[in-house]
Amino acid sequence: MAMNSPHLPPPVRELVGRTRQFVREVVIEAEPAPGERLDPATRARLQAAAKEAGVFAPQVPKEYGGQGVPLEHWSPVLQEAGYSPIGPSALNCMAPDEGNMHMLHLIATEEQKRRYLHPLAAGEIRSCFGMTEPHPGAGSDPAALRTTATRSGGGWVVNGHKRFISGAVGAGFCIVMARTEAARGAPEGATMFLVEMTNPGIRVGEAIHTVDRYIDGGHPHLHLEDCFVPEEAVLGEVGLGFRHAQVRLGPARLTHCMRWLGLARRSLDIALDRAERRELFGAPLKSLGLAQNLLAESVIDIETSDAIITKTASLLTEDPKAGSALSSVAKVHCSEAVFRVVDRALQLCGGDGVSDGLPLAQYLNEVRPFRIYDGSNETHKWAIARRASARRKAAVDSGEPYRGEAAVCKGGA
Amino acid sequence: MAMNSPHLPPPVRELVGRTRQFVREVVIEAEPAPGERLDPATRARLQAAAKEAGVFAPQVPKEYGGQGVPLEHWSPVLQEAGYSPIGPSALNCMAPDEGNMHMLHLIATEEQKRRYLHPLAAGEIRSCFGMTEPHPGAGSDPAALRTTATRSGGGWVVNGHKRFISGAVGAGFCIVMARTEAARGAPEGATMFLVEMTNPGIRVGEAIHTVDRYIDGGHPHLHLEDCFVPEEAVLGEVGLGFRHAQVRLGPARLTHCMRWLGLARRSLDIALDRAERRELFGAPLKSLGLAQNLLAESVIDIETSDAIITKTASLLTEDPKAGSALSSVAKVHCSEAVFRVVDRALQLCGGDGVSDGLPLAQYLNEVRPFRIYDGSNETHKWAIARRASARRKAAVDSGEPYRGEAAVCKGGA
Amino acid sequence: MAMNSPHLPPPVRELVGRTRQFVREVVIEAEPAPGERLDPATRARLQAAAKEAGVFAPQVPKEYGGQGVPLEHWSPVLQEAGYSPIGPSALNCMAPDEGNMHMLHLIATEEQKRRYLHPLAAGEIRSCFGMTEPHPGAGSDPAALRTTATRSGGGWVVNGHKRFISGAVGAGFCIVMARTEAARGAPEGATMFLVEMTNPGIRVGEAIHTVDRYIDGGHPHLHLEDCFVPEEAVLGEVGLGFRHAQVRLGPARLTHCMRWLGLARRSLDIALDRAERRELFGAPLKSLGLAQNLLAESVIDIETSDAIITKTASLLTEDPKAGSALSSVAKVHCSEAVFRVVDRALQLCGGDGVSDGLPLAQYLNEVRPFRIYDGSNETHKWAIARRASARRKAAVDSGEPYRGEAAVCKGGA
Amino acid sequence: MAMNSPHLPPPVRELVGRTRQFVREVVIEAEPAPGERLDPATRARLQAAAKEAGVFAPQVPKEYGGQGVPLEHWSPVLQEAGYSPIGPSALNCMAPDEGNMHMLHLIATEEQKRRYLHPLAAGEIRSCFGMTEPHPGAGSDPAALRTTATRSGGGWVVNGHKRFISGAVGAGFCIVMARTEAARGAPEGATMFLVEMTNPGIRVGEAIHTVDRYIDGGHPHLHLEDCFVPEEAVLGEVGLGFRHAQVRLGPARLTHCMRWLGLARRSLDIALDRAERRELFGAPLKSLGLAQNLLAESVIDIETSDAIITKTASLLTEDPKAGSALSSVAKVHCSEAVFRVVDRALQLCGGDGVSDGLPLAQYLNEVRPFRIYDGSNETHKWAIARRASARRKAAVDSGEPYRGEAAVCKGGA
Repeated sequence: MAMNSPHLPPPVRELVGRTRQFVREVVIEAEPAPGERLDPATRARLQAAAKEAGVFAPQVPKEYGGQGVPLEHWSPVLQEAGYSPIGPSALNCMAPDEGNMHMLHLIATEEQKRRYLHPLAAGEIRSCFGMTEPHPGAGSDPAALRTTATRSGGGWVVNGHKRFISGAVGAGFCIVMARTEAARGAPEGATMFLVEMTNPGIRVGEAIHTVDRYIDGGHPHLHLEDCFVPEEAVLGEVGLGFRHAQVRLGPARLTHCMRWLGLARRSLDIALDRAERRELFGAPLKSLGLAQNLLAESVIDIETSDAIITKTASLLTEDPKAGSALSSVAKVHCSEAVFRVVDRALQLCGGDGVSDGLPLAQYLNEVRPFRIYDGSNETHKWAIARRASARRKAAVDSGEPYRGEAAVCKGGA
Repeated sequence: MAMNSPHLPPPVRELVGRTRQFVREVVIEAEPAPGERLDPATRARLQAAAKEAGVFAPQVPKEYGGQGVPLEHWSPVLQEAGYSPIGPSALNCMAPDEGNMHMLHLIATEEQKRRYLHPLAAGEIRSCFGMTEPHPGAGSDPAALRTTATRSGGGWVVNGHKRFISGAVGAGFCIVMARTEAARGAPEGATMFLVEMTNPGIRVGEAIHTVDRYIDGGHPHLHLEDCFVPEEAVLGEVGLGFRHAQVRLGPARLTHCMRWLGLARRSLDIALDRAERRELFGAPLKSLGLAQNLLAESVIDIETSDAIITKTASLLTEDPKAGSALSSVAKVHCSEAVFRVVDRALQLCGGDGVSDGLPLAQYLNEVRPFRIYDGSNETHKWAIARRASARRKAAVDSGEPYRGEAAVCKGGA
Repeated sequence: MAMNSPHLPPPVRELVGRTRQFVREVVIEAEPAPGERLDPATRARLQAAAKEAGVFAPQVPKEYGGQGVPLEHWSPVLQEAGYSPIGPSALNCMAPDEGNMHMLHLIATEEQKRRYLHPLAAGEIRSCFGMTEPHPGAGSDPAALRTTATRSGGGWVVNGHKRFISGAVGAGFCIVMARTEAARGAPEGATMFLVEMTNPGIRVGEAIHTVDRYIDGGHPHLHLEDCFVPEEAVLGEVGLGFRHAQVRLGPARLTHCMRWLGLARRSLDIALDRAERRELFGAPLKSLGLAQNLLAESVIDIETSDAIITKTASLLTEDPKAGSALSSVAKVHCSEAVFRVVDRALQLCGGDGVSDGLPLAQYLNEVRPFRIYDGSNETHKWAIARRASARRKAAVDSGEPYRGEAAVCKGGA
Repeated sequence: MAMNSPHLPPPVRELVGRTRQFVREVVIEAEPAPGERLDPATRARLQAAAKEAGVFAPQVPKEYGGQGVPLEHWSPVLQEAGYSPIGPSALNCMAPDEGNMHMLHLIATEEQKRRYLHPLAAGEIRSCFGMTEPHPGAGSDPAALRTTATRSGGGWVVNGHKRFISGAVGAGFCIVMARTEAARGAPEGATMFLVEMTNPGIRVGEAIHTVDRYIDGGHPHLHLEDCFVPEEAVLGEVGLGFRHAQVRLGPARLTHCMRWLGLARRSLDIALDRAERRELFGAPLKSLGLAQNLLAESVIDIETSDAIITKTASLLTEDPKAGSALSSVAKVHCSEAVFRVVDRALQLCGGDGVSDGLPLAQYLNEVRPFRIYDGSNETHKWAIARRASARRKAAVDSGEPYRGEAAVCKGGA
């Protein structure tokens, strides 16, 4: 399904077209069989081709070798990338690297940028983000963070156990979130550290085998045992780790939506193709109302997802705090919508849909975790409700009339 | 709930604020009890006050006395108007007048504008749109049109039976769609006529009592019996009635979404207020997860509706045909979403929700027909699916690979 | 839609047929226009005819003049009654009388039965059940009960304010739930009292106008002001009011499901008839897949509702406590399913569906409150989840293995 | 979650308990890791143990070594079997063997029973059912059957290409559906043949790799090339293959529901266990409303599925044709409900849910195809709607009033 993106600046529109062409002509050819992973050699070859085609790292500023598209217009580009499940890796706009690049760009020192952002943006290394911990540590509730960092010998010693650290196997460095005490004017809280994976104090642990296949580097455990890092490893300010991470979370949540929405479009195309040529009871599937119902609902899911992403991206630019709040809405809506779109496409393809003759069954496994990753949808809904309540309470406290009281009927029965 | 509308030009943003204030401070005070209708005197008083406050007819060009907001930015203004169910009448941006004004502005002659658009824009008269007919005439399928117009004595004679003509009682004129034969270079097809309601050949017939209350002038039958109109009564070109009506349908569909979304925001505010102060099992409702779930889903419905409206309005400006197609998606999503939001709010208010102590039960009756009016959602879904199939087929015919074939596993079992 | 009720004893099957015929041939003729109420004279006439036809009070034991159907087989009979919204009144199996009769039969003294159950079963008087109170009193949370009864002068003095007391206007007596202190061996708790509406201490207060029309006697407030009742007014045992009320709640909840399911069948019949004769785009509606989808989902909703009612009725007979717990499941499922069925039927009837030319808009208003009455669905879901958790915890505590622990992958990444 | 099954005869109740114990104490221990298959040796060991424990082949008549439970009471037993995904194989009540045994018992000759039913019931061989063909042959539309059988040399020669033949790899025989011409008094139509897999004319072809794992023998293609079978290979009567297959389809569809419902109960138990011990934001998950909502909806899905299965099983016994029609309703409801239950359980387990540390991700892949297998849910909904329309039309044709006409309001507007 083609995208309608009103008001796109011509250079972005052109990049969208170029990306579309590259993904469809080059990337899709190189896709592994359903259930298989992208191998590093193919990844490298595709990234080189993407550089050649002028579509590499669309979201990265030009100074680091990217295409310099502003956040507000990432969506149509990343959707085209996501039309292939390996597109984002080929274009170096895949999680978790993409979020890490965005954060490094905004808060890293020049030296840190030189050391970590440059090679990451160039696709020379990969990275990971070390936040989640085994229960009862930091999961949906970051405040439960148990990993600690204490000052020692002109640097810091980090100890802790992380889990579900996407991309960790083969990564060049990890951004580790750790609890730090108040000291030297810094508040008590969390601090982020840039830890190179060659550091003897960090160790990739047990693998966690999940149903998704396209995040390079798995989702393993990570162990930090007396892991010493120098002062320059602190990313941003000491004690402000959670606040800094907000800079990453809103956009990172949204780019997930963009990429998966691309895969939803692919799924719908498969279903539309199928409905065009397959017949049932003597009529093409596409003419049967029960199939049309599934197709129409998928179009609605895709268009509303596209629209809420666009709105959130605009708001993130204009008012990052409001945009970050709205990204919860986008995340819940898009992750549910994308899942439904793939599920309906699979349904329309019948027995082939659940076989590996078509990629849809793997796509379904690929998008299912998105309703859990990046904060489960239930956690986001809880936050959405609380924010709505707080906002409305503030309005009423400022003079808006309270509207919840039922008028009493004065007359008799 | 306050709106997030990124990238709004300052004058529009200011009008949104003024409209918000006017509706909340002046209009809501004047609302009739649930189930009652707005009386003409109050309507006139509110319209005068709206002119005074500089918020009257926001969508109407300034030359006709409106606020001149471009279609692309109607949404936040009309949502504020719709925060009260009588707001759109008070501000003269209610259906069907609003759609008629838009069409007259685009296709009427200067003389027709003087005679019909000016007084309509000023709120001096009301109007209606005569398309729908009793079964098996024009309903969800306009091609079934049975009303006819034939040339006679330098003008036209119209005969037919219309039904569900919203706003007809008390209207100054009706835009009547009638079938016309090919002649004098005009194609066979439908033609629109401006018929004054004082014309002896037009007669308001049996009322149709529906559950909604806020469209002035009911939804009666309309009888055209040898109704003679002069040549100047033709609106647009002879034979192009359906094509012209497209100009009206896309935006009119979308302004319905805008207005009802305002009422959804009101409903959510009522629910949020209730959840703030009511307790259940010793805890405020707003802290209970089952209530939070309802609240969060309503926020998501509202935000995605807002986003798809914004996108459609932009597209209608940039590419009217694509925008009109997308308005089907917006109509289905918003009408379902708004219904759910009101339904959840009612649910959260328990017994009071289904009583007339709160306005929610009437709101539910008010928004229920929106899933049927302006083309039932099933008809729109059918159109959405057909368009998606046709678009994809065209892409495949132009060289996109067909993706619906399952790969066959070559090896043995 | 005809019912499939396997294993029905022949006499019950015969009564089902008789009731079906009576409702369709006699009762439907007498239905008031949509939005109007059944007048007492018609009610009396229909009840007399129902006695004549041998279909009166199907659920009442024969000794009180009913048809003596056991609870286990009420469902098909009450569904036939509910095929007309006034059928249950005509047959004297309407709420709240039906629930009160059931409870009186089980726990009243012989004298109480003579005085209250006999005339109630004969349709000579109506009754009400006084449990709900204004916030923050007893609503979804009965433990918040504020009405009190204290011993005085050989009887009791009751004081309190009740609300939403269905059927109160014109009722002969009310069963009032009041808080009582521990004394004379009776536990602290609640006690039920039979209060005649002619008692000077009880007064029907402000009406609550709700969207439903078919419960005779409205839902008004009720005021108890130093209301003296003799010792014989105690229903069941002092202090055991809540426990006794359980006897009423499970079956009363279920009979609501049965009656409304009858109305859902009526709604589906209207939709099926419509789909049979109306055409759209040149084909009968019933042949269009989008309509078939709505019809099929309604059949599924009706059949699953019928099945869970049957199961719950059997369980209430065999194990009242388990049956009462399951009645929460039946209530939530049936109230949501019935609402959807009526909503879809209305949708299929288009503009006529939201007008009073068909009864569906009123039916929708009639069934909407059922998702709130008798404990809101959210409250029931909360109870369902808690019971499931408790049952599972007990199983694990008794030796069932805990299955919530994820196995850890032993190998490296 | 324990089952409530009112009115179960004591011997069946006892068998349910024994099966429950066997599955939980013996079978679950032997489950392969998520994603792996049951190996034949373990299968044989478990079947031997099941015989020992007196729980083997519960649905098979005692004369063939089964437990002789009547169809009406299969459900609670098969649900206990399905509590482990390998339980049905261990107990020899798995598809497609279970359906084949049922059909052989009803329509095979004594000699055929001796040769095929006996060893199948004893677990000595497996079987398959050869109906589905590659597009455009028999799939959701059996009438499109392309495989043919022609008389030749005192027997039949079968030619055709089958696909998605569950259980074919390693099966002892296949029941092949083929088109046959009218002859010798037999009608034109389809005929079933018992074809031994050692027959040189039958060949297992390409595998189809699907996401499910627990049907032994895969879902491969099957090629019949000049496959000669003797006259005694005809199962049932010549030309009545489709009618005979009805005997199989209704119950087979329903036993799928029973088995998967057992897996849904297992999934809910996992979720309940998790919710009991995991904490979020300082509170146990089970106390959070958003989790309670998921748990309650799953209980409702399970209980309504159980109820519709029970009703359908009763009806299949009392009126096979009506029961077969209702089995479409049961199939659609249960397959959707079971999928939702597993999906919610996975959601409640967060990251572990999508990993192979818990079995839920595999369960989701296991139950997903059930919405497609045995006739896609869309095909069943189409049949449900058509049957409802036909039944209602017959009622109206027989004198029931047509209820689809809107009354016209007589007064003026």
